[in-house]
Amino acid sequence: LVNTTAQTFSLTAKPVLRALLGESVSPPPLWLMRQAGRYLPEYREIRAKCPGFVEFCLTPELAAEATLQPIRRYGFDAAILFSDILMVPYGLGQPVTFREGEGPVLEPVRNAAGVERLRDSEAAVRLAPVYETLRRVRISLPQQTVLIGFAGAPWTVACYMVEGGSSRDFAAVKAWAFGDTEGFEKLIDLLIEATAAHLIRQVAAGAEVLQLFDTWAGVLPESFTRRLVIRAAKEIVARVKKSCSRVPIIGFPRGIGALYLDYVRETGVDAVSFDSGVPVSWAAREIQGLVPVQGNLDPHVLVAGGAALRDETRRILEAFGRGPFVFNLGHGILPETPPEHVAELVRLVRGG
Amino acid sequence: LVNTTAQTFSLTAKPVLRALLGESVSPPPLWLMRQAGRYLPEYREIRAKCPGFVEFCLTPELAAEATLQPIRRYGFDAAILFSDILMVPYGLGQPVTFREGEGPVLEPVRNAAGVERLRDSEAAVRLAPVYETLRRVRISLPQQTVLIGFAGAPWTVACYMVEGGSSRDFAAVKAWAFGDTEGFEKLIDLLIEATAAHLIRQVAAGAEVLQLFDTWAGVLPESFTRRLVIRAAKEIVARVKKSCSRVPIIGFPRGIGALYLDYVRETGVDAVSFDSGVPVSWAAREIQGLVPVQGNLDPHVLVAGGAALRDETRRILEAFGRGPFVFNLGHGILPETPPEHVAELVRLVRGG
Repeated sequence: LVNTTAQTFSLTAKPVLRALLGESVSPPPLWLMRQAGRYLPEYREIRAKCPGFVEFCLTPELAAEATLQPIRRYGFDAAILFSDILMVPYGLGQPVTFREGEGPVLEPVRNAAGVERLRDSEAAVRLAPVYETLRRVRISLPQQTVLIGFAGAPWTVACYMVEGGSSRDFAAVKAWAFGDTEGFEKLIDLLIEATAAHLIRQVAAGAEVLQLFDTWAGVLPESFTRRLVIRAAKEIVARVKKSCSRVPIIGFPRGIGALYLDYVRETGVDAVSFDSGVPVSWAAREIQGLVPVQGNLDPHVLVAGGAALRDETRRILEAFGRGPFVFNLGHGILPETPPEHVAELVRLVRGG
Repeated sequence: LVNTTAQTFSLTAKPVLRALLGESVSPPPLWLMRQAGRYLPEYREIRAKCPGFVEFCLTPELAAEATLQPIRRYGFDAAILFSDILMVPYGLGQPVTFREGEGPVLEPVRNAAGVERLRDSEAAVRLAPVYETLRRVRISLPQQTVLIGFAGAPWTVACYMVEGGSSRDFAAVKAWAFGDTEGFEKLIDLLIEATAAHLIRQVAAGAEVLQLFDTWAGVLPESFTRRLVIRAAKEIVARVKKSCSRVPIIGFPRGIGALYLDYVRETGVDAVSFDSGVPVSWAAREIQGLVPVQGNLDPHVLVAGGAALRDETRRILEAFGRGPFVFNLGHGILPETPPEHVAELVRLVRGG
């Protein structure tokens, strides 16, 4: 209790938290989705120590090191837990593996019987190494760097659970969601509970900000976006806020276009992250007055570098720089990104 | 000249033309993107007669029959030329083939030298069978059925030309577009010319409406959407309008979200087609007052059928039915669609 004032000062001194609390921070704080990962040689080196990707995520020493690498190299304003959105189905007991060059492989869940077999009761134990990773990272971070925990949103996680991996057309998950909406919503409801619990445990382990990734939010028609994307985010936000009222939650409903506005108004997220397709002029005018915003450089522009990188970065800074804003990409960094382009981006954002 | 009144009457009696001229038609006219195709047994039968897909498209007897099949079966209000958006690169001399289950394969064009090798001078001859197909279809259509010609928009066609086929991430085309924007725009400019010429020749052969498909419009950041999607559509519309001022042009910039509004305001299209992700409430409020609209049932809902099909169809009819509107899907019909679900959709839209 003696330290309250000092703690408040040290918390609000973190630029990401200041921006997420509504302050216009200049230069804006900066981190990048998938900033820890394959584009970094130091990541590829530690990744080689543990062939299984799930095992890598569940080895606190390695996952913590991966989380910290981009902070050391670039001094980003946020570290984001090195983990995967499929940790929630893993926690629920669904077998998950990753095959080289192929992405995730899951035993598909396609009906009520499949949902019945999932159990959230073991998740806290199965995912204990994730929380241990957060504890390790938190004590190793520079004072001004915020620690972000995250989860996939129920619709996106359900896409992988039902398809059994990545998909181009989402035929199986849409067949279920459209053909038996009430049955499918039992899976979504289970995921709402499991995701909220996972996020709350991340906060208990040291996460100071949370981000909810709805990567495939954009593939649904409006009424299902409302039922499966907006409702799920709203219920997760409500559950998390009950336990940890002061932790800002960033929503990332990738690709929902004009529905970003409804998402922001209805879910209760504290901030919103824009995909690269969101027009910055529209987003600054329509949304930044409601909540702090994050985004939205195209990761392919970061690969290209040069004039496109300078022009796009300037355009984003001009559109969002006068309000509460966290600079980020509009989607995860690509493995082929030259690390020196990331350094250049950091210089551009910080005005160096 | 004697027939002017009768011609005007017969033209304006076609429900699709009435809707595209701004009239609220009840029940709304109806056609479906890719309504001719693999979901129809009669199509699979004639498709088997000609193994090469490009050859199939260039055989007027077969392509005309494919165009007419869904009109006979369902009585749609529009027939759309059976062809492919890659006919334009084929016309420019780029080798194009289709491999079973793999999609299109093109010899990639990746630099100025590749663009130099393309020639539009032979296109009218190389594509002559396409125009012959239109002439055959036009004389076989019921009086109230409109004939739609189409082309891919330059950005989307460039995606295939540069990637050499389908792509998940558009890495090659984005590397060029972002890394050497001026060089890449030479390809776009060539495609603007070739596409406009192809559309004008389609009108000369009997097309009464044109649709410009920009399937991959949604993968670009705002500034590039303006340069590559909106500018290209605007220039094509201007060129086509110069030759055929009375032919309505429908733009379909799939996935551009809030930028649909700018697309409509800036390109000069006569109508706009919405992808399934566009929220109908927003689109009805913001866009239907500017131009007639078309769309946007999720093709997976049509596969699912049942309550989802009834509910979604009703929602779309309620949102758009009071203004100028053409019922359609938000993307092409899927091969696994049960033909009886299409019949059910026709009944639902026509209030039967």
